[in-house]
Amino acid sequence: MRTIDWVNGAVEIIDQTALPGELRVLRLHTVGELIAAIQSLAVRGAPALGVAGAFGVALAARVHQDDPAALAVAVQKIESARPTAVNLARGAQRAARLLPLGPDAVLAEACAVRDDEVAASHAMATRGADLVTELCGDRPRLLTHCNTGGLAAVVLGTALGVVGELHRRDRLAGVIASETRPLLQGARLTSWELTRWGIEHRVAVDSAGPFLMARGEVDAVILGADRICANGDVINKIGSYAHALGARRAGIPFLVVAPESTVDLDTAAGTEVEIEDRGAAEVTAHGDAVNPAFDITPHDLVTAIVTDRRVIRLDRGETTA
Amino acid sequence: MRTIDWVNGAVEIIDQTALPGELRVLRLHTVGELIAAIQSLAVRGAPALGVAGAFGVALAARVHQDDPAALAVAVQKIESARPTAVNLARGAQRAARLLPLGPDAVLAEACAVRDDEVAASHAMATRGADLVTELCGDRPRLLTHCNTGGLAAVVLGTALGVVGELHRRDRLAGVIASETRPLLQGARLTSWELTRWGIEHRVAVDSAGPFLMARGEVDAVILGADRICANGDVINKIGSYAHALGARRAGIPFLVVAPESTVDLDTAAGTEVEIEDRGAAEVTAHGDAVNPAFDITPHDLVTAIVTDRRVIRLDRGETTA
Repeated sequence: MRTIDWVNGAVEIIDQTALPGELRVLRLHTVGELIAAIQSLAVRGAPALGVAGAFGVALAARVHQDDPAALAVAVQKIESARPTAVNLARGAQRAARLLPLGPDAVLAEACAVRDDEVAASHAMATRGADLVTELCGDRPRLLTHCNTGGLAAVVLGTALGVVGELHRRDRLAGVIASETRPLLQGARLTSWELTRWGIEHRVAVDSAGPFLMARGEVDAVILGADRICANGDVINKIGSYAHALGARRAGIPFLVVAPESTVDLDTAAGTEVEIEDRGAAEVTAHGDAVNPAFDITPHDLVTAIVTDRRVIRLDRGETTA
Repeated sequence: MRTIDWVNGAVEIIDQTALPGELRVLRLHTVGELIAAIQSLAVRGAPALGVAGAFGVALAARVHQDDPAALAVAVQKIESARPTAVNLARGAQRAARLLPLGPDAVLAEACAVRDDEVAASHAMATRGADLVTELCGDRPRLLTHCNTGGLAAVVLGTALGVVGELHRRDRLAGVIASETRPLLQGARLTSWELTRWGIEHRVAVDSAGPFLMARGEVDAVILGADRICANGDVINKIGSYAHALGARRAGIPFLVVAPESTVDLDTAAGTEVEIEDRGAAEVTAHGDAVNPAFDITPHDLVTAIVTDRRVIRLDRGETTA
């Protein structure tokens, strides 16, 4: 099952806001529907957003075939639907380069973006599982945050794909899924995927992560990235930075798994990234809130970054460049 | 309004599980009802639990006046209703010392425990507000965790009493209430109390705390304690340790406000304390969870402890002894 795909002239996605209660597939026929799905987090996760961006341009190319101005506006709206997600704009731009050749060429390129993400997931899973075993030895206990599984990619995932690969190799002793407030992607989505994969796990409130590390119950933290800056700073779901502080104090590895398309050499450091505030309603029904959806983990707290092409050992002074 | 009091022959408490939706007062006539209220967190907070322990023994002394064996069992059950809460056992034991003099003497002592907590709240508020102004200058922005207001004490509170006193002095620029998963004491109770006090504030998910500190939006963290060990380690609501790591990295003070009755010189260090796991149901409806209700903040991350009698500057090498 694919989280996002092109099926019979429309984009089909698994509606992640309905999980784990219901496995519902949405068919998106217009750019407006696609953008709404991105903004409501019905589709989310860096790799999946890259594919969504590309398929969005494919939709726009069909609808606005004879109106270049409207087409340009649509492409711009897709690119900026979620400002933190570098993959979204990249996927859209990659498909948009084919616009002069017509809608069929754009769709073919969007499908290539999808296929590349599938291949990247498999490459990350293999490389990441090798690294975890190298750093932690046999059968480590891992803590992960947010959802980085097949739901965040097209299949398999990034960090959770590594967890799945370690399980397949029978080299995994346990998983803690950090629930990931406010939208509970860990408790809802990661737990659902791990259950489907037959992997035993426990959910924990986010703030328990650092304490569980201090108590010796976690051998490494492994999670994804929405954007990796040139200096190695990692932009990821709110709560990642707190886990990184916990990992550092506990002396355990903090590992980031993300496709190469997440590495953004045009952004020098995390402080340059606009952090989306998603408003009070997600957090509380009783008043005002501050709700940054992402945070910045400074590169000095990151042990290694695993992409589909390489392992960057920041702890050994290696860089993204 | 008092969170807990003795009214017409029974213990009356504000049911904190019903807030902020409903302000409901429960009348507890038996030790069993009192223990159930403690375990469901209808009454919670270190100072309030001390008073609950004392009033519980007053209830037991009336019911079991002619059955010393049953009385001893009841007192023991009260003392151990929540293992982390040193105040609970202390309040119970203080009232229990009067058992040989009969139920009226026990009740008088329990009322004295209550009155002492009221006086202690006022002393902490004054001393804590002075310290915050000394460390942070005029009009700081504070982050607090869990609920340490009047609901956790009898009136006013511990850390939140300091916040209230700074507001009264017009020396407060802002408050962030960390929501405190899984039971949301921050979003439900602290936000409710701050609103009643007319103090503007924002709620944040727990995992955002360290990032908001890194972004320069917090001048100090101020929170309570369930137990303070001889070496200065602080046992408090899960999530406190993560905030302490964030405060250290951001270079801002991490302040603990708790009555002297919370200082437990018989416990050398935090690792000696049994941490209550409250089970999966509080965390998720979808499977297994690990749910430590408290964590341990090592003393080296604590800037200062404020009690009703003193300020202990751990950052200057002062100790609890």
